[in-house]
Amino acid sequence: MRIGLDVMGGDYAPDAIVEGAVDTLQHLPADDTLVLIGDSEAIKKKLGEMNVDPSSFEIVHTTQVIGMGEHPAKAFSQKKDSSISVGYGMLKNNMLDGFCSAGNTGAMLVGASYTVNVTPGVLRPALGIVLPKVNGRRSVILDVGLNPDCKPDVLLQYGILGSIFARYVLEDENPSVGLINIGEEETKGTSAVKMAYELMKDHPGLNFTGNVEGNSLFQENMPDVVVCDGFVGNVILKMGESFHHIYKQRNLQDLYFDQLDFENFGGTPIIGINANVVIGHGVSKRKAIMNMVIRTREVAHANLAQKIREGI
Amino acid sequence: MRIGLDVMGGDYAPDAIVEGAVDTLQHLPADDTLVLIGDSEAIKKKLGEMNVDPSSFEIVHTTQVIGMGEHPAKAFSQKKDSSISVGYGMLKNNMLDGFCSAGNTGAMLVGASYTVNVTPGVLRPALGIVLPKVNGRRSVILDVGLNPDCKPDVLLQYGILGSIFARYVLEDENPSVGLINIGEEETKGTSAVKMAYELMKDHPGLNFTGNVEGNSLFQENMPDVVVCDGFVGNVILKMGESFHHIYKQRNLQDLYFDQLDFENFGGTPIIGINANVVIGHGVSKRKAIMNMVIRTREVAHANLAQKIREGI
Repeated sequence: MRIGLDVMGGDYAPDAIVEGAVDTLQHLPADDTLVLIGDSEAIKKKLGEMNVDPSSFEIVHTTQVIGMGEHPAKAFSQKKDSSISVGYGMLKNNMLDGFCSAGNTGAMLVGASYTVNVTPGVLRPALGIVLPKVNGRRSVILDVGLNPDCKPDVLLQYGILGSIFARYVLEDENPSVGLINIGEEETKGTSAVKMAYELMKDHPGLNFTGNVEGNSLFQENMPDVVVCDGFVGNVILKMGESFHHIYKQRNLQDLYFDQLDFENFGGTPIIGINANVVIGHGVSKRKAIMNMVIRTREVAHANLAQKIREGI
Repeated sequence: MRIGLDVMGGDYAPDAIVEGAVDTLQHLPADDTLVLIGDSEAIKKKLGEMNVDPSSFEIVHTTQVIGMGEHPAKAFSQKKDSSISVGYGMLKNNMLDGFCSAGNTGAMLVGASYTVNVTPGVLRPALGIVLPKVNGRRSVILDVGLNPDCKPDVLLQYGILGSIFARYVLEDENPSVGLINIGEEETKGTSAVKMAYELMKDHPGLNFTGNVEGNSLFQENMPDVVVCDGFVGNVILKMGESFHHIYKQRNLQDLYFDQLDFENFGGTPIIGINANVVIGHGVSKRKAIMNMVIRTREVAHANLAQKIREGI
């Protein structure tokens, strides 16, 4: 397994990215290779400070950086030797099994559609996030920000994409799928959600368990796959961040609430493109970067992109 | 001030409602009257068990009950002597300054539009909820479930209605207003939210502070008024419930998280009708009922309905 890591992306790049990369070494199988993509001098300098042998990694030198505030499409097209462009180029040429970055999210999305492309048959790729439930299991929720307005057929397909994700990445054999709504009854919700309910209910390939209300989120009865538009999913994700922030601020201590730290989430896989790609939070530090690489390895190991090509 | 309380509505009616009513006595000014609407025999029996003098209240006897699962419009029209129908009749005839119920939400909404009516000029009434922020202040968020699909002009008006609510009920002189979105930039979000942003930005009557992301909810920088459609608002409200549930389950103790119990929220005022009405959670017990009555008194004391008639 070869996993590419953009060392130049994120608010704390490159140092925190290298630190996170070093921490992954104890979690990745010995025959995996973590490919550090970025300024090789800066990488080696940081590794030296940490007393880590550079040969623990493969280093691909790049000379350009796409800044966090740059225009995504313009920057991606013009900066051919940026870490993001090089990473996608390697993905496209099968030199990587997965790629991740905490850099410019827009550029990561542009890169996906300019190089590896959306998987044929996928209406709209989604950003998913894997959340820990209170009972120790995990669920995937999608979309968390890519498509704020979702048509019913897109929501249905999120159920299918999410099921493939849960089956192969989370290893749930027959994942249950729920639709975020404001009541249990199928007559509830927006017109798009009501129509999506009809489509999902009748779909033979889905283990659809009905509507999910906000009070089931994180609970034992939360389905393995939770479908919503990117607007609602983004609010859910960030509201979780807010609660975790208050939890920390108030010096509470609890093993479950500790897990709800975004640093543990491992970033958001792009679900529905022809490659295994994970986007991290711009503010990722050492721990978040480590978890992003581990998530990317998990997605690449399952070969999510191929499973979606076969399953859609 | 005369506040009506539906004693027959809610999963734990009538006993828990009477208990909550008794607890309000120490919070309401001496010249306020709490009017208990329901089966007078059941009310007096419960008061007797509690050793409370029935003359502490005014009791209006009703013979019918609208069940939690009944068809709202049908039940409201047919059961003229139900506590909800009688309560709305009294409101309409100015025999009450405010009315509240933890009963059939649909019947409470139908009652509003069949008797006291929507305030002229209001496009769509909203359900608001007052949330405690981490800094001790309070914000109102609307809509939390009445209108899952909201057009931009409705969202703009929620900003205006919420500002009136915050000014007179929460006593914020110049309430800030934010729009729930998935990013700070005005180009983010659904098409409805983007158009609402344009309308709110240019509206002279609003102290609009821009988009609010999920990670600002409950935080110090959360605006006094938070506007969203009823789908998103409902998910936010219920996700808060979920977190509070986990917090309790894990035996954590914290003064702020304690406040996030729905029992403290005091129900959801209907904002934009010609009367001061508050709807409680169906599972309300003693404490939640007490807080619902206190919130209703607060809304009636501010005379929200009249302030909206004047301000819209």
